[in-house]
Amino acid sequence: MKITKKRLAHIVFESDDWASKTFDIVLLFLIFGSILVSILDSVASIRASYGQLFLYLEWVFTALFTLEYVLRIWLSRKPNGYIFSFYGVVDLLAILPSYVSFFVLNSQLLAVVRALRLLRVIRILKLGRYVSEAEYLQRSLRASTHKIMIFIGFVVTIVLIMGTLMFIIEGPEHGFTSIPVGMYWAIVTLTTVGFGDITPSTPLGQFVSSIIMLLGYAIIAVPTGIVSSEMASQRKKMDAPKLVTCPNCGKDDLRPGDNFCGNCGIKMH
Amino acid sequence: MKITKKRLAHIVFESDDWASKTFDIVLLFLIFGSILVSILDSVASIRASYGQLFLYLEWVFTALFTLEYVLRIWLSRKPNGYIFSFYGVVDLLAILPSYVSFFVLNSQLLAVVRALRLLRVIRILKLGRYVSEAEYLQRSLRASTHKIMIFIGFVVTIVLIMGTLMFIIEGPEHGFTSIPVGMYWAIVTLTTVGFGDITPSTPLGQFVSSIIMLLGYAIIAVPTGIVSSEMASQRKKMDAPKLVTCPNCGKDDLRPGDNFCGNCGIKMH
Amino acid sequence: MKITKKRLAHIVFESDDWASKTFDIVLLFLIFGSILVSILDSVASIRASYGQLFLYLEWVFTALFTLEYVLRIWLSRKPNGYIFSFYGVVDLLAILPSYVSFFVLNSQLLAVVRALRLLRVIRILKLGRYVSEAEYLQRSLRASTHKIMIFIGFVVTIVLIMGTLMFIIEGPEHGFTSIPVGMYWAIVTLTTVGFGDITPSTPLGQFVSSIIMLLGYAIIAVPTGIVSSEMASQRKKMDAPKLVTCPNCGKDDLRPGDNFCGNCGIKMH
Amino acid sequence: MKITKKRLAHIVFESDDWASKTFDIVLLFLIFGSILVSILDSVASIRASYGQLFLYLEWVFTALFTLEYVLRIWLSRKPNGYIFSFYGVVDLLAILPSYVSFFVLNSQLLAVVRALRLLRVIRILKLGRYVSEAEYLQRSLRASTHKIMIFIGFVVTIVLIMGTLMFIIEGPEHGFTSIPVGMYWAIVTLTTVGFGDITPSTPLGQFVSSIIMLLGYAIIAVPTGIVSSEMASQRKKMDAPKLVTCPNCGKDDLRPGDNFCGNCGIKMH
Repeated sequence: MKITKKRLAHIVFESDDWASKTFDIVLLFLIFGSILVSILDSVASIRASYGQLFLYLEWVFTALFTLEYVLRIWLSRKPNGYIFSFYGVVDLLAILPSYVSFFVLNSQLLAVVRALRLLRVIRILKLGRYVSEAEYLQRSLRASTHKIMIFIGFVVTIVLIMGTLMFIIEGPEHGFTSIPVGMYWAIVTLTTVGFGDITPSTPLGQFVSSIIMLLGYAIIAVPTGIVSSEMASQRKKMDAPKLVTCPNCGKDDLRPGDNFCGNCGIKMH
Repeated sequence: MKITKKRLAHIVFESDDWASKTFDIVLLFLIFGSILVSILDSVASIRASYGQLFLYLEWVFTALFTLEYVLRIWLSRKPNGYIFSFYGVVDLLAILPSYVSFFVLNSQLLAVVRALRLLRVIRILKLGRYVSEAEYLQRSLRASTHKIMIFIGFVVTIVLIMGTLMFIIEGPEHGFTSIPVGMYWAIVTLTTVGFGDITPSTPLGQFVSSIIMLLGYAIIAVPTGIVSSEMASQRKKMDAPKLVTCPNCGKDDLRPGDNFCGNCGIKMH
Repeated sequence: MKITKKRLAHIVFESDDWASKTFDIVLLFLIFGSILVSILDSVASIRASYGQLFLYLEWVFTALFTLEYVLRIWLSRKPNGYIFSFYGVVDLLAILPSYVSFFVLNSQLLAVVRALRLLRVIRILKLGRYVSEAEYLQRSLRASTHKIMIFIGFVVTIVLIMGTLMFIIEGPEHGFTSIPVGMYWAIVTLTTVGFGDITPSTPLGQFVSSIIMLLGYAIIAVPTGIVSSEMASQRKKMDAPKLVTCPNCGKDDLRPGDNFCGNCGIKMH
Repeated sequence: MKITKKRLAHIVFESDDWASKTFDIVLLFLIFGSILVSILDSVASIRASYGQLFLYLEWVFTALFTLEYVLRIWLSRKPNGYIFSFYGVVDLLAILPSYVSFFVLNSQLLAVVRALRLLRVIRILKLGRYVSEAEYLQRSLRASTHKIMIFIGFVVTIVLIMGTLMFIIEGPEHGFTSIPVGMYWAIVTLTTVGFGDITPSTPLGQFVSSIIMLLGYAIIAVPTGIVSSEMASQRKKMDAPKLVTCPNCGKDDLRPGDNFCGNCGIKMH
């Protein structure tokens, strides 16, 4: 059997027959495998035993993903379109650090590059290709993005003012060493995360904190309200009754129960 | 009075007369009692005084629940259907550890089995049989399950990337000892739980944390939006009366109880 | 001017003329005053300076609230109705500890009663009388109560199972000293409070915790969804167009736009 | 080119040609610049190196903002209207501390004034002038304000009672040193922030805390419900097209663009 370039492109880019589905499944296993290796390699006790194996596996994965990357460029009709697309960049970032670590001799820089190799966990984003159903969520989120951005701007304003206020009230002796630290604390508090690594100790600081918390409690409702009303609206669009087209004038948004076309007046039933 | 097998099955499986209701109530008391004993037995100071009593009680409960289990198998028309049903497995898990602890001689393994005996608190799941009203909630949750699963997949992706990023930035010297620990921290932060057992100490780490927290604040809205819109939709279905169409003028939103068409005045029944 | 019993009852129970409004306002000031004294008295440094003054004030407040309590009983048409009503019990609880502390000689018991005197802050519940607008919120909450109770039952089930599981996994050496403590930790975690006083330290414990947190993240949506859909439903009832009554047959739920009565068929416009 | 007072007022207050747009952009850069300097100046290590530069920059910013403030007063048709407006007060607060620090000789007071100089970060509120789109959010929030205030009053009542209860139960030896501290803890807990700086240690305290947390979990739904239903209502108002009534048959839900009645077929325009 001779595999033409066209056939190969079909295997790589589609997933509707035996060969192309196998290609996708093998790729899925490779992605999960490489992520698993990255995670296990970060656990000191496991690396002590299997570090050498993980190094071999890493190069196997890198070689295979490089092959995939080269194939995709070669088989694309518009290679530039792929290279600069979101998944193209993800594919490149997933293999680049391994190669860079090969050419770096400076030991300090090498440590940084080694750390960056862990970034290959971003390969998980390649899974996005296989989850078509996430689209519904994405659409809802994208429709709310603009309002959520304004909301976050509003939150950042509160955070800046509250962080400064707490820096003035509590001061470095209670852990609020600078305005950025105060802002970090304000975000931790306003989002109700509340690590407790920095906490107010003066009565005035505790009073102001209480105000911030009640404020955060009240405004946490805002993004929820935005997304909820956005989703309810999208659901209504889907639930809405199918519209009827007039056979005479072609107006396409008539209601099923109408007796006459609202546009040209022809009788419809 | 002679109790037939049929009568016994009625007592065990139904709850519409004196005997069957008593059976249910006795069972409820046994479940609450056995759970209470498990809880009290776990408190060191109470076990010191009443440990022996709890051991006796445990065997009483185990005997009674075994009797119930055997009865249910014997009385079921399809014993296999019961044994492999959800409640069948729960019933078995609630009595099994006690018997296993009896046959285990190895002292180390015995400690494990003794710990597992505490799993009899899952008997509380048997209460589900008596709460028919929980169905409404279950239906709403089941209808949203698919979307919530996708959402959790999305969250896990963020958690993996953020956990890795924080492991690179903060490193083992600040408590982020491995990627799994980083992921644990990312979940603690993104869900706004914020234990504070691991916290970022470098300025860069605190900055990235702030981004994660604002992100978590924005996306906490998503599951709420999903469930809210699902519940609003189910409520609308229940609240909406079926509408009737007038056979004369075609007006399609008449109420079922109307005697005359509200639009053209024709008699409808 | 002679004040009759009827006039006095009007002053105490109504608030529509000069005297009765003054009575209400004086009472409001007394409530806030007594709460403020309770709060300030609890701060050790302030009590050191003003403790004696606070003691005098407490007896003044107790005397005045006793006068109010006696008045209300005497002036009520059905004294028993008042005494056993919610506000009647609150009024009694607000004055009782002060008197009890007078008759207790045992010093240890006296300390307990002194602590209970602080319960006079529950006088704040008497403010409920003056906030008629809170009714809207109360109605929404009451309509959701049943569903929220089922939900809390569901949460308690999860908490019991998860608390037991973490007690088995982490054990007393990591702070999970008993099942009740494990349940306390599960509630702290599931509600996303996350104090951090008890935290999982074993990898398995951290993994199970992550599951609990994601679960809590998903189900926090449920009560929100319940209340949201309840409120949307109540708002719709208020927003709904006024219905028209048929002048012929008296059917009272006709829509404003109907030309004929849907019940008797009479022409309406 | 001679600049008249009228032309200058146009540049300062409008933003529709080259000069006025440039004025706005320069102002935006000055605001961000001054805030950045405030933030960096609060970091001890950065101030050690660049403290002198920041002092110069602060006086430059103060001079420029003073110029802007004087211009706005001079050019306003109603100077008093500007001075006592929200932005007028913000503009004054942003420059006042710098001048006050100049006239204060007492070193202790000077420290306070120096701290207050950081309040110039409130200049960020001046950005509100440039964000016209935040209006939608503001309107939704304002419409819910009344209900949210009642809700916060309700929360404060719970906080007062729970804070007192925990002060009685746990007492000063477990960190609950006074009722205000107990209330601070109750707010930290009820809002699910959960710092963990103060935590219950007695079994009874942990039990009451669990109740508070489940309560907070249930009522966090309320503000969300309020804002959600408010937003859904506002969205519906915007989305809903005005409906037209047919003058012939009285069908009252025709769309404005229809040429013929969809029910009886009469021509409408």
